[in-house]
Amino acid sequence: MLHLQSESTQRWLLHVDQHLNELLIDHAHCERKAATTALNLMNAYTEDLELCREMSRVVEEELEHFFMVIEILEKRQIPFRRLAVGPYGRELNRLIRSAEPDRAVDRLLVASLIEARSCERFSLLSEHVRERDSELADFYAGLFESEARHHTTYVRLAEHFAPRALVRERLDQLSKMEAEIIATGSDLPRMHS
Amino acid sequence: MLHLQSESTQRWLLHVDQHLNELLIDHAHCERKAATTALNLMNAYTEDLELCREMSRVVEEELEHFFMVIEILEKRQIPFRRLAVGPYGRELNRLIRSAEPDRAVDRLLVASLIEARSCERFSLLSEHVRERDSELADFYAGLFESEARHHTTYVRLAEHFAPRALVRERLDQLSKMEAEIIATGSDLPRMHS
Ligand SMILES: [Fe+2]
Ligand SMILES: [Fe+2]
Ligand SMILES: [Fe+2]
Ligand SMILES: [Fe+2]
Repeated sequence: MLHLQSESTQRWLLHVDQHLNELLIDHAHCERKAATTALNLMNAYTEDLELCREMSRVVEEELEHFFMVIEILEKRQIPFRRLAVGPYGRELNRLIRSAEPDRAVDRLLVASLIEARSCERFSLLSEHVRERDSELADFYAGLFESEARHHTTYVRLAEHFAPRALVRERLDQLSKMEAEIIATGSDLPRMHS
Repeated sequence: MLHLQSESTQRWLLHVDQHLNELLIDHAHCERKAATTALNLMNAYTEDLELCREMSRVVEEELEHFFMVIEILEKRQIPFRRLAVGPYGRELNRLIRSAEPDRAVDRLLVASLIEARSCERFSLLSEHVRERDSELADFYAGLFESEARHHTTYVRLAEHFAPRALVRERLDQLSKMEAEIIATGSDLPRMHS
């Protein structure tokens, strides 16, 4: 359902164990960036009013998620701060073709894969901390559904710009490359490292 | 209350009379751009959580306004489409100083002036079309309050980056320049022409 071609590695769970606070801060930034991605897509393809409606819903939900993570940070007295950005988003964005309508397809599919990877990690994180931190486990379990829905929304919207078969083929290609980026990883403890 | 140093001219009301449909389309784009401005400010100054909270409220309200205008377009069977961008926003953005924290002050005050001018124009438009188009008159009268509140919010947030007296002085300067940009005007029929 999530169209991912790899599972997160043990290495990432080490980040969860050793740098949970930093990961939570990064998660807040991810939600803010997810809202921005959706609004950017609405701006770029604004004549597609169905896309506008879907993107505007995503913007509102991601902003809500942002403040939910901020609330968790505040409860835990973890100061919110800027973080150096990991390579994941940058590497994925480099895969976006530049000519329309390919560009639209790729922007939507890259967004769909980021949502899918978030989903997978939220679920893994939730199970991993369940015994020692049930509050956090519940929080991440609760986010799964909406991020999975965002994934599906982005894939569906890509079909506004190319026939379904082409979208599926491109999603398969991009998701292979996403799995490679995840396999290479990064030493920065991030949601998508 | 709106810190504007001029009233809209008869020239703009001619645009209302002669190009109302195009003006309505431009208004939809203005709301979308207002949402984007707010989210950009939240991204730029994200460690200021009060600013984030205010900006996120503005984003949601502007997106709501966008769809309210789209609904009016649909009711009137006016096709939504891209428009050439008028000079108003570009001219205002050129006034923003580049070094922080001046840049933050200016970005917030420019946003506050755009909200103020929208307010003034909505109110003028509402009165101007009252007799012949009460639906539109009511719609624009109804938007006045929230755009006025956005104006006040932006001015208040500018005080996070400079003392109140400096903010007032800069607002006075910028609003003088805004009045000049409005006086020069543009032939494109736009909300801020
Ligand atoms: Fe989210
Ligand atoms: Fe999401
Ligand atoms: Fe608005
Ligand atoms: Fe506004």
